[in-house]
Amino acid sequence: MTDAIIPIKWENDQLQLIDQRVLPQETTWLAYDDAESVAHAITDMVVRGAPAIGITAAFGVVLAARAAYTQSNSDWKQIIKKDMATLAASRPTAVNLFWALERMGKCIDSIEGDPVGTLLAEAKKIHEEDIHANQTMGDLGASLIKEKCSVITHCNAGALATGGYGTALGVIRSAWRDGKIERVYADETRPWLQGSRLTAWEMVQENIPVTLLCDGASAHRMKQGGIGWVIVGSDRIAGNGDVANKIGTYHLAIAAKHHGVKVMVVAPTSTVDMNIKSGADIPIEQRGADEILSLGGKRIAAEGAEAWNQAFDVTPAELVDAIVTEKGVVENPTAEKMAKMMANS
Amino acid sequence: MTDAIIPIKWENDQLQLIDQRVLPQETTWLAYDDAESVAHAITDMVVRGAPAIGITAAFGVVLAARAAYTQSNSDWKQIIKKDMATLAASRPTAVNLFWALERMGKCIDSIEGDPVGTLLAEAKKIHEEDIHANQTMGDLGASLIKEKCSVITHCNAGALATGGYGTALGVIRSAWRDGKIERVYADETRPWLQGSRLTAWEMVQENIPVTLLCDGASAHRMKQGGIGWVIVGSDRIAGNGDVANKIGTYHLAIAAKHHGVKVMVVAPTSTVDMNIKSGADIPIEQRGADEILSLGGKRIAAEGAEAWNQAFDVTPAELVDAIVTEKGVVENPTAEKMAKMMANS
Repeated sequence: MTDAIIPIKWENDQLQLIDQRVLPQETTWLAYDDAESVAHAITDMVVRGAPAIGITAAFGVVLAARAAYTQSNSDWKQIIKKDMATLAASRPTAVNLFWALERMGKCIDSIEGDPVGTLLAEAKKIHEEDIHANQTMGDLGASLIKEKCSVITHCNAGALATGGYGTALGVIRSAWRDGKIERVYADETRPWLQGSRLTAWEMVQENIPVTLLCDGASAHRMKQGGIGWVIVGSDRIAGNGDVANKIGTYHLAIAAKHHGVKVMVVAPTSTVDMNIKSGADIPIEQRGADEILSLGGKRIAAEGAEAWNQAFDVTPAELVDAIVTEKGVVENPTAEKMAKMMANS
Repeated sequence: MTDAIIPIKWENDQLQLIDQRVLPQETTWLAYDDAESVAHAITDMVVRGAPAIGITAAFGVVLAARAAYTQSNSDWKQIIKKDMATLAASRPTAVNLFWALERMGKCIDSIEGDPVGTLLAEAKKIHEEDIHANQTMGDLGASLIKEKCSVITHCNAGALATGGYGTALGVIRSAWRDGKIERVYADETRPWLQGSRLTAWEMVQENIPVTLLCDGASAHRMKQGGIGWVIVGSDRIAGNGDVANKIGTYHLAIAAKHHGVKVMVVAPTSTVDMNIKSGADIPIEQRGADEILSLGGKRIAAEGAEAWNQAFDVTPAELVDAIVTEKGVVENPTAEKMAKMMANS
């Protein structure tokens, strides 16, 4: 993994995040010393992508524990609760955030004495497990691609959205290595343009041919032929296999179904929320209208116009051909198959 | 029609166009004295929208004739051919361009002596007929909307895309007047953002509630309910009712079909090309990759990334519930029904 893209690191007793808002023009690392600023970094999308948000929150808990233990080595487990709540409130849809906080919380319960070493080890373990899961999923997903083809992806479910290697882009990396990818078409993904800024950049790093599409163009591109798969990540998968992902994914999946193009969703089991029966119950983040009404800080739409900026949508399981997790592949997902996969060990 | 938006005018012996590239921040009129610069204005999208392109080209012919006749009052009909060809080459998809040039060409054939007065009268007639057609289509289209609902539109098929009043937005204006419109959802329409910049502006002028959507969000919005119709314009309609329109329209129509939302295409008969049997034969303009790779003159995508910038797509007739022209409404269009409508007088 020389030169691998790893967007999160622990260095000089600080959490460091690559600032994804200014990529690819600038590669800037920002350093964080406290949990509240980590929560802001998640809300403001310095870091984004469900698995990356989870890992970041885990390191945020380390910073919270350090501060709390410094304040009081007897009451720190009480004091830390406020920071845990702040981290939990940073973004609502990606369940990996809550999964990571719960896992760190369980670790906290068992700690006696200075918590920093134990919690830092746990956060690093979460990070390493994520990279390993992505590599496993990459190979599992690539094995589903039977013939060399072009693929369409949406948003950025790459190394930058995870601990490294990526979910959807992990599959694309593995499939490219295996000679199965002709070309990657990347939706530019408004309003944040993660496709243009992040996915295209990741692909160019590894000489994988990448062509950007406006979000409305993918159906027209599918009609021309040669597209075998739509491959995307997810922010939360319900117990029945319904998939929340970046706004536009549902639109893309409908177009795929219309053209007989298959849909693969790639996400670690930390993204699966078995407490939620169907996609209808997944909380969808509503972001500010200004992300659509303005561009580069300049208003583009007429004053008086409104904007509807739901950051995610839900693709029902019946539009998904395969969900790939590190525990295995679920084809034509149902509640029963999802439960069986999650029970695998 | 006080305060009506009219994007094209003849004033001081010049063609004047509102510069649609800088709306709504700036309202700038640009003046044209020769056909070649009019052709550039069409290519560069100072003026856009199929009917508006046709009207503009007609006035371009007036300027061409004036120059040619000044050069030689005997050979002007030969001399003008070069300018006619330049105008014809300005954009390939909107058939109204070729329709207007053909109509002006027929007029030229019958002229003896100074052509300017006759051609100017013909160009003004084309302009007036277009506004009148839009008003007729507005009422015809509004009558198809049986219950008050919200609608989704794509790109700008408004006053700015026509001689005035608009095609799709003409229907929305008439339906709003009749109390049938709850709210207009406008796709922002990448890469040129005609929805954000032009459609939202037109709606705000008339206090019609307008909400912008990212192009990938309309399917998710349809799923929430309340959307009765998708209403769009067209750049060319084939003899069988297949519809070329701004990239993203096909994607939108597939999503509409998936949700049981009806699709209305509104265009004057000058947009119908009975010489073309099906959408597969409509030439689709491929514009520069830079419109997608850069934003506001600044590169956003990584160097090395490509972009696929087809400016239009084709929606097959089977996804269209109604085509509205000034000659009548064609429901569930077929070649037979289209031919019958075109034969109406």
